[in-house]
Amino acid sequence: MPRPTPISGFPEWLPRERIIEQHLLDTLRRSFELHGFASIETRAVEPLDALLRKGETSKEVYVLRRLQAEDAEAPDAGLGLHFDLTVPFARYVLENAGRLHFPLRRYQIQKAWRGERPQEGRYREFAQADIDVVGADTLPAHYEAELPLVVAEALSAFPMPPFTIHTNDRRLAEGFYRGLGITEPGEVLRAVDKLDKIGPAGVAAALTEIGLSDAQLKACLALAEISSTDGSFADEVRALGVRHELLDVGIEALTAVVEAAGRQVPGLVMADLRIARGLDYYTGTVYETFVTGHESFGSVCSGGRYDALASDGKRTYPGVGLSIGVSRLLGLLIGRGLVTASRSVPTCVLIAVPAEGDRTAAELVASRLRARGIATEVSPDAAKFGRQIRYADRRGIPHVWFLGSGDRGDEVKDLRSGEQNAADAGTWAPPPADLHPTVVAASGA
Amino acid sequence: MPRPTPISGFPEWLPRERIIEQHLLDTLRRSFELHGFASIETRAVEPLDALLRKGETSKEVYVLRRLQAEDAEAPDAGLGLHFDLTVPFARYVLENAGRLHFPLRRYQIQKAWRGERPQEGRYREFAQADIDVVGADTLPAHYEAELPLVVAEALSAFPMPPFTIHTNDRRLAEGFYRGLGITEPGEVLRAVDKLDKIGPAGVAAALTEIGLSDAQLKACLALAEISSTDGSFADEVRALGVRHELLDVGIEALTAVVEAAGRQVPGLVMADLRIARGLDYYTGTVYETFVTGHESFGSVCSGGRYDALASDGKRTYPGVGLSIGVSRLLGLLIGRGLVTASRSVPTCVLIAVPAEGDRTAAELVASRLRARGIATEVSPDAAKFGRQIRYADRRGIPHVWFLGSGDRGDEVKDLRSGEQNAADAGTWAPPPADLHPTVVAASGA
Repeated sequence: MPRPTPISGFPEWLPRERIIEQHLLDTLRRSFELHGFASIETRAVEPLDALLRKGETSKEVYVLRRLQAEDAEAPDAGLGLHFDLTVPFARYVLENAGRLHFPLRRYQIQKAWRGERPQEGRYREFAQADIDVVGADTLPAHYEAELPLVVAEALSAFPMPPFTIHTNDRRLAEGFYRGLGITEPGEVLRAVDKLDKIGPAGVAAALTEIGLSDAQLKACLALAEISSTDGSFADEVRALGVRHELLDVGIEALTAVVEAAGRQVPGLVMADLRIARGLDYYTGTVYETFVTGHESFGSVCSGGRYDALASDGKRTYPGVGLSIGVSRLLGLLIGRGLVTASRSVPTCVLIAVPAEGDRTAAELVASRLRARGIATEVSPDAAKFGRQIRYADRRGIPHVWFLGSGDRGDEVKDLRSGEQNAADAGTWAPPPADLHPTVVAASGA
Repeated sequence: MPRPTPISGFPEWLPRERIIEQHLLDTLRRSFELHGFASIETRAVEPLDALLRKGETSKEVYVLRRLQAEDAEAPDAGLGLHFDLTVPFARYVLENAGRLHFPLRRYQIQKAWRGERPQEGRYREFAQADIDVVGADTLPAHYEAELPLVVAEALSAFPMPPFTIHTNDRRLAEGFYRGLGITEPGEVLRAVDKLDKIGPAGVAAALTEIGLSDAQLKACLALAEISSTDGSFADEVRALGVRHELLDVGIEALTAVVEAAGRQVPGLVMADLRIARGLDYYTGTVYETFVTGHESFGSVCSGGRYDALASDGKRTYPGVGLSIGVSRLLGLLIGRGLVTASRSVPTCVLIAVPAEGDRTAAELVASRLRARGIATEVSPDAAKFGRQIRYADRRGIPHVWFLGSGDRGDEVKDLRSGEQNAADAGTWAPPPADLHPTVVAASGA
């Protein structure tokens, strides 16, 4: 078998990098649970018609087929891999509505798949960490300010560079476009969504193509230029002279989100009227998150409010949520060397084995250390101590334990200082910082 | 949209059941890390040729196709979902050999997919938790006794019913069959592997069909009847009068595994010569694990030693590992009501909101509790207190916090006792057992 090579768009981490990913996921989970979000996981597959109903990414869906499927009517025929966690969650809510309590606060950390062309920050298989609150029939607007703050608190508990959450309101944009006399605001929204990629001239060309007048497209571009970390964006919008009932609703809602968030963490959440979000299911507030100095990497946490994603005819389940692009964020943080892990294994102590006959004694010491929460392995073989120390050193294991013999008791060596001291397996403890691998911002990053 | 229905073979948990799954996965991870196993995750897909190379399950592989794929040569053409975690891990080892340290101890907790007919304990999408140790060119035999003990320790840290790990050695069986003059021992192994399903008469018929004489098949069935929790199985095997060099190697290896494991946990690991394992890649010790009283549910943790799964022509990477069937085990424990979770949300405290204007004050109390690790949510709205208490009660949230006003300070109510006491957000703590949801064996189970 020749050495396998990676598959473009399907990233994998080495053990030391995986420790960084685990630390990020643990941090997010802890924050989400502290805020009362319950975990759910959904199956990886959904019926194709459910996947194709919503959003621009439908064409990138991966379809499943059993290698030797005989029966097109089999229950696993016509399935595709989910491309996000929102569509499966909406389906889960409908399917289990009678057994869930609303409003439902849930988080979901899973892989998703899209057959997009891979590029920096864009993968075909990627992990997402989502939080959503979903109500039955109604959902209070205060969640639209609460959720970006939860996500920000979760991300800030990790060694993250500074970031900003940019918000807009779909109704503000749609009302503005309608006030301009535009009848297909969705097309304008999709064109404006490409502003960062193709620039104002590109967007202007796209808007001309869909039939906007020069005055209309200039107003649309002027709207997209407006941003503020407080309610002052509203005056700038009104100064453009457009009037529409839906515009007023959007301005009021966005003002409430920015001001409520600003009361808790000033400057974190800003109104940014260029934010559009490609997915069709958003109906109110939308969010994108940019890491300061790495804006071109794209949004690392996006979402919004969706009022009509889940409905069974009798009830609708409006929701609001944000999705952290875990793989994209790690692609940035690991790929650009912004964070680093202290070692590549969980192990804190290696028990050296003087001779194979001592393995049982070594395992006993290991058990006693593990019983007190100290991650310990026993050396794979009774090689020369120099080689056993190298085994630990290469993996970043900080301590090597030597069994006593005759009058000499056990001793433990700190591989960084080289210091070796007497130690008892029932009482010895490593410095607290050595207990688990640590993940920190890389020095100089 | 009509209410969606489940897809057979793709199980999902409700939030309270998911808490049980999380607790199992946390427990396993903690044990694996205490033993120095590092986490890795591999992509969900492998090239089809890699998936079809090994094992009986090849025909059940799910193949991926992009919905609008134009190019059969695209890097994501010809991919299938992995059906276990061993084949992807072997590929990962080969791909990254130059950047890994051997022996490599890794655990891997992920989903896998097989297009099998769903039945109790068998799913099309299922979670597995694997540990393996892989060496470069050589791997000491002591790992074959160590790994089942790690798995047993990990499972025993969860409220599990009693279980036994059954082991055999492929070389023992192959040597025995060859000693009987059988030239295709693989076919015999696959027939004997069905003993639990089709019984001795069924296996005898299958063995007759592949050309075994009556004496040969009787000896094969007699071998499969032998078991012991110590080395005494060896005498019973020798009493059958078959001689072969490979048989001796297998007996010696299996004796070492059973005796080494028995020294640490007597009775846990037993020699059971009917254990075969369907997958082709095992070359030495094999394991299956049965929950006492639920043997018909099938093995909940299986694996073995594989010497030739990963080889790049220059080096081979022998390994030994076990895989816990997380979904199957939970299907048993949850499906039969053997374990239960104390609540359906992580939340320990709900802050009641007297009026919407008090939301900011309520969030402040929540922040102070969260800062001390107490999972807290704020009530969704300022409904009557009775309704807010019902919100907590339905989810199993044990404590409801009432903001003070005027002369009255904050108070907290324990919903189980009904007791309500003065409390300060900077110092109050719940009883330790309330801090997180607990998972326990169901009473009477």
